[in-house]
Amino acid sequence: MADTQRNLGDTSMGDSPAEKAVFRRYREAAAVGPWNTTIATLLAHRSVRAYLPAPLPEGTVETLVAAASSAPTSSNLQAWSVVAVTDPERRARLAAIAGNQRHIIDAPLILVWVADLSRAQRIGDAAGVRMEGLDYTETFLLASMDAMLAAQNALVAAESLGLGTVFIGALRNDPEAVADLLRLPPRAYAVAGLVVGLPDPAVQTAVKPRLPQSAVLHRECYGAEDPETLRAHDRATGAFRAEQVLSRQGWTDLVLSRLQTAQGLSGRHVLKSVLGRLGFPLH
Amino acid sequence: MADTQRNLGDTSMGDSPAEKAVFRRYREAAAVGPWNTTIATLLAHRSVRAYLPAPLPEGTVETLVAAASSAPTSSNLQAWSVVAVTDPERRARLAAIAGNQRHIIDAPLILVWVADLSRAQRIGDAAGVRMEGLDYTETFLLASMDAMLAAQNALVAAESLGLGTVFIGALRNDPEAVADLLRLPPRAYAVAGLVVGLPDPAVQTAVKPRLPQSAVLHRECYGAEDPETLRAHDRATGAFRAEQVLSRQGWTDLVLSRLQTAQGLSGRHVLKSVLGRLGFPLH
Repeated sequence: MADTQRNLGDTSMGDSPAEKAVFRRYREAAAVGPWNTTIATLLAHRSVRAYLPAPLPEGTVETLVAAASSAPTSSNLQAWSVVAVTDPERRARLAAIAGNQRHIIDAPLILVWVADLSRAQRIGDAAGVRMEGLDYTETFLLASMDAMLAAQNALVAAESLGLGTVFIGALRNDPEAVADLLRLPPRAYAVAGLVVGLPDPAVQTAVKPRLPQSAVLHRECYGAEDPETLRAHDRATGAFRAEQVLSRQGWTDLVLSRLQTAQGLSGRHVLKSVLGRLGFPLH
Repeated sequence: MADTQRNLGDTSMGDSPAEKAVFRRYREAAAVGPWNTTIATLLAHRSVRAYLPAPLPEGTVETLVAAASSAPTSSNLQAWSVVAVTDPERRARLAAIAGNQRHIIDAPLILVWVADLSRAQRIGDAAGVRMEGLDYTETFLLASMDAMLAAQNALVAAESLGLGTVFIGALRNDPEAVADLLRLPPRAYAVAGLVVGLPDPAVQTAVKPRLPQSAVLHRECYGAEDPETLRAHDRATGAFRAEQVLSRQGWTDLVLSRLQTAQGLSGRHVLKSVLGRLGFPLH
């Protein structure tokens, strides 16, 4: 198999389902150990941006939130909430905030994940306590991570049911508009949305290639990647984008275009002051 | 079933596996929709703090990292790394940093999840570009969330294999010591650790109760919870802690003790300046 071209999708993946799945993820052969259907679900993740208008099966939101509730939470503080938005007009407004992402309008549901310190504030208010700890960067970070751990569990649950999902980080382009729309109280902000719906079977989406384990996995201590690893990932990303009929761009060019200037952050360079106004002073 | 006591564990859970699982999670009956084995794995999550010294099956790290690589990443920036630490001395030092958490010494592996903007910095350096975008709070948040989405996928994969896990947020008690120990470059910090090992079957851990969906799930717009919901969760948490032979503490008392003063943050009230020294100026 060594002389088979590596950039033609599934042609040189190895025989087992595990080998095939890791090849699809990395676009190169990689070692893999124990395997099961849950791990296969995780490895098969892809973002879906084309949805059928069909409603979700009854009880889907409750199942996804039960999965979210089951995620770890730092010190059991449970500093998150989720707003399930189905109303078409409200979804259209979220889509506009997110830079006109059409799939927010097409899919029947967007779950908006909220870093929620307002609940702790209410507990403090009821006890007559100032809750000084809520003002710190650590607590902001903890709440943001709690929200995303919960969201990721909901995503895994949804994909295990054959539903499509895509995270909408672009809600952070204007967190005040989202807070206003969803009537979030002070000390709460929307970290990201998660669109959920039935994927349109007419639009195929492939597994997006990721940096190889030699770049992201370090043993005992950190070591910088071999630059050739990044060039190989540029080629894998370029091949993926060509298959998906997207503009040709390598991965390192993406990183440069997003991060070389404040303008690349799509307005999010002001996030710190916006968070301050929403009740996260970030001391 | 309506007159059955609700706080005695599994005695009033309903008949289906799904109903039993949601009852265990919330300690009250709750609506639930579609169900499968992956969702059952998610609902069964519990933190494990008692481990056998046995090594992990061969290839486990690679499987867990393949799951981590498959998590969503904001704008495909892949701003995370993981350091797999097995060396007993290095694990002992991590345990000390985390306030002497014995399970870091007992289990064979801790995966340290790193918010990693140093890779983007290297790409910028190679291109002769300053990478101004790395200085912003948004980019710090994005990298932290990327790391935790990856970590959560690894956790789910590990639990699906019958392995035990527990997150170690206490690495943030001293991120500079962790960076020094793991030789992290500037613009990288350890967000959290994830202990992985074989659970000691002699020590039973139960599913920890969470706030009911009426408190965390909002429809269309946010609404504050009924205060009675918090009192019920105090009772559920108290019952859980009594069963686990832990000190009696309700949930709202936990929230108050952790967040009413800066001292409750276990030294993490200085995180902002520590992050500044590690290359995250948080503009």
